Amino acid sequence: MATPALAAGGDALSIITDLTTDVGQRLGGTDREAAAREWAVARLKTLGFANVRVEPFPIAGWVRGEEKAAITAPMPQKLAVTALGYSGATPVEGVHGELAYFPTLDALKLAPAGSLKGKIAFVDHAMKAAQDGGGYGPFGAARRQGPQIAAAKGASALLIRSIGTDHARSPHTGVTRVPSQGEPLPAGAVSNPDADLIARLAGKGRPLMASVTLTPRFTGQVMSGNVIAELPGRDPKLAPILVACHLDSWDLGQGAIDDASGCGIITAAALEAGKSGQLARTIRVLWAGTEEMGGFGGQAYARAHAGEPHSVVMESDTGADKVFRALFRVAPQDKPLAERIGAELARLGIYTGDGAPEGGEDVGYIADKQKLAVIDLNQDMTRYFDWHHTPDDTLDKIDPAQLQQNVEAWTAVLKILGSYTGVINPAG
Amino acid sequence: MATPALAAGGDALSIITDLTTDVGQRLGGTDREAAAREWAVARLKTLGFANVRVEPFPIAGWVRGEEKAAITAPMPQKLAVTALGYSGATPVEGVHGELAYFPTLDALKLAPAGSLKGKIAFVDHAMKAAQDGGGYGPFGAARRQGPQIAAAKGASALLIRSIGTDHARSPHTGVTRVPSQGEPLPAGAVSNPDADLIARLAGKGRPLMASVTLTPRFTGQVMSGNVIAELPGRDPKLAPILVACHLDSWDLGQGAIDDASGCGIITAAALEAGKSGQLARTIRVLWAGTEEMGGFGGQAYARAHAGEPHSVVMESDTGADKVFRALFRVAPQDKPLAERIGAELARLGIYTGDGAPEGGEDVGYIADKQKLAVIDLNQDMTRYFDWHHTPDDTLDKIDPAQLQQNVEAWTAVLKILGSYTGVINPAG
Repeated sequence: MATPALAAGGDALSIITDLTTDVGQRLGGTDREAAAREWAVARLKTLGFANVRVEPFPIAGWVRGEEKAAITAPMPQKLAVTALGYSGATPVEGVHGELAYFPTLDALKLAPAGSLKGKIAFVDHAMKAAQDGGGYGPFGAARRQGPQIAAAKGASALLIRSIGTDHARSPHTGVTRVPSQGEPLPAGAVSNPDADLIARLAGKGRPLMASVTLTPRFTGQVMSGNVIAELPGRDPKLAPILVACHLDSWDLGQGAIDDASGCGIITAAALEAGKSGQLARTIRVLWAGTEEMGGFGGQAYARAHAGEPHSVVMESDTGADKVFRALFRVAPQDKPLAERIGAELARLGIYTGDGAPEGGEDVGYIADKQKLAVIDLNQDMTRYFDWHHTPDDTLDKIDPAQLQQNVEAWTAVLKILGSYTGVINPAG
Repeated sequence: MATPALAAGGDALSIITDLTTDVGQRLGGTDREAAAREWAVARLKTLGFANVRVEPFPIAGWVRGEEKAAITAPMPQKLAVTALGYSGATPVEGVHGELAYFPTLDALKLAPAGSLKGKIAFVDHAMKAAQDGGGYGPFGAARRQGPQIAAAKGASALLIRSIGTDHARSPHTGVTRVPSQGEPLPAGAVSNPDADLIARLAGKGRPLMASVTLTPRFTGQVMSGNVIAELPGRDPKLAPILVACHLDSWDLGQGAIDDASGCGIITAAALEAGKSGQLARTIRVLWAGTEEMGGFGGQAYARAHAGEPHSVVMESDTGADKVFRALFRVAPQDKPLAERIGAELARLGIYTGDGAPEGGEDVGYIADKQKLAVIDLNQDMTRYFDWHHTPDDTLDKIDPAQLQQNVEAWTAVLKILGSYTGVINPAG
């Protein structure tokens, strides 16, 4: 069991190990997420945090059902498939039809209306690994928007190449946009080797037939919740720092890199920065609920705490690999503070970049509402999309040395912010 | 489509690509293996081989059914599981009971008789990647012998850590020893991350409960077959060279590294060595059937061809990564021939090792029967047991540059052997 007496890196790894071992997957709105909240409250209290509580909020529940797919002609080959988040369901006997191959989402958009009637659409793409994970936004459009576009063309189901950069038979799930009316289209992702096979077969020009059975279901209104805890600062007049991760995970793996690691990093660093009563300013830790299915924890936090002061927000939700870059959004008069932090991070091999920080789903809503200062510590995402949202998101993917570098970087930032007694201004 | 006009490496990659794309998995004794034979005969004829034929033989058929397993206490967690070859079946509703953890097969052997009554045995191990793949024999004993040992202790089912070196949620199948009487025990492998989880939970000392559903079935006597083809040498008095791979694969992946790559390598090299009528001695190519389930193709070949002369046998069945070492078993008077071959291989960075060649399941039976000379070209197996017998054995795992090095090494050997007009003696 982790205790405050352990080294910071030890605390991070203990949190990740115990959450993935004793709870495992924790899909938003399910009893496993509730079990994770219970675990989280107990652990945060044990670690010495104050004001540990759960702030519940309702979401639309959705759970996975049966999942299978296969090429049926020109020869039978099973496909490794998983339903995308909020996918609609096929009949229990599945749908069967011609597989219409589209090399990109743009090609799907160009298909004439009605042309996919009775067909299963397949959307390919060419995402490659990138250190900053920059391809996820553009290539991920196939997952987010694909189902509604395919439905508009008359398709009976959509399959996409997993939004991922690996070569494993593990399909990547992830959320889709839910139509404002009507049932969502049954939509799944196949693994990259399966997508390779479909692309090779499509390249031969012979008709492809496929079958798809996906039977997820919506479970009505269910409860999720944010877990919040604090290390109180000496001066209650100084606005708190908000640091966040998310506690929920997709249901296929253990949610180790997404996002037990974020919870481990921010929590261990907060404890390290708060050692021996060094904090002038409160650090509030948010382990958000149901991030994966639409950022609902971050939205609930922003609603519940809109009237309270905050100073800086930070989030860790891109794995456990090393921090390579810092990005700052601060008011002009707070540039010297940012430069002080940047200089400290440079000692750890982390440079200050020019771009704008993203914040993230857990802190972005409150940051937008209050125009808060944001600091991003960008992690190396070269490997992240190999495992993201797959059964392979398991504890063994955590590199303890890189995890420790994250904790050191976060500790450096939180020590400076936590001891800073000046006003930190809205970034505007 | 590959033609003899292509470069040798091109032929090898074409064979692998087309076999994995147009046929896919080809479990021994199934209609998919029959489809592979039909494909193979057509391809070998197109490539210019003579005497292309199928030699059928019967085997005991076995096919996979439903497969699921889960930890049920102290908390629910699904396990990625697959049935081992010739596993028995659980009832359709599965078996449920305490999961008894054994860190090694030796620990299982020490369990008192009857002590596993109503329990599910779990056998762990610590196999690590090795260039020569040497851990597969010793650690693989858990798979081969485990079911009978667990059955003797009264277990209702056996789960093992996959005999593999990866960190993917892909379990490794592979054959088990079938008991001489009675039903085999239901036996499955879980992926390494799942085994890690079980080991962590077992380490906490609390009772573990699990459920296992595996419903494979034996399909009675079914037909498999060897595909044989020849490049005839000028001198029919010189005993042929036999080069072999296996055409069947496990059913989970595409059988790319196991063993489409072997078929690609030996076939491309034979064609290259036989270009422009350079062969004095016939090269016989054997694409064996049903190797995976017990070396049945190699046994059938040895029975059917016991009365015919052979000179040297060679087999490629350890993936597509580079050859790093050659091993020779030759008669004392053929040492100079072996040294000539070794010197040519050294130009490709391949050294001659001291050990005895293994031959392999496809050529070993005839080699033992006739005391034949054997040459092994040992491939780098560091990555091989990451994907061996898993859903991840797909085309994308082939490195074309390393594949080409294999073809070059095999071509060098076959050119020397094929043009050698002396007698090659039994190795004794």
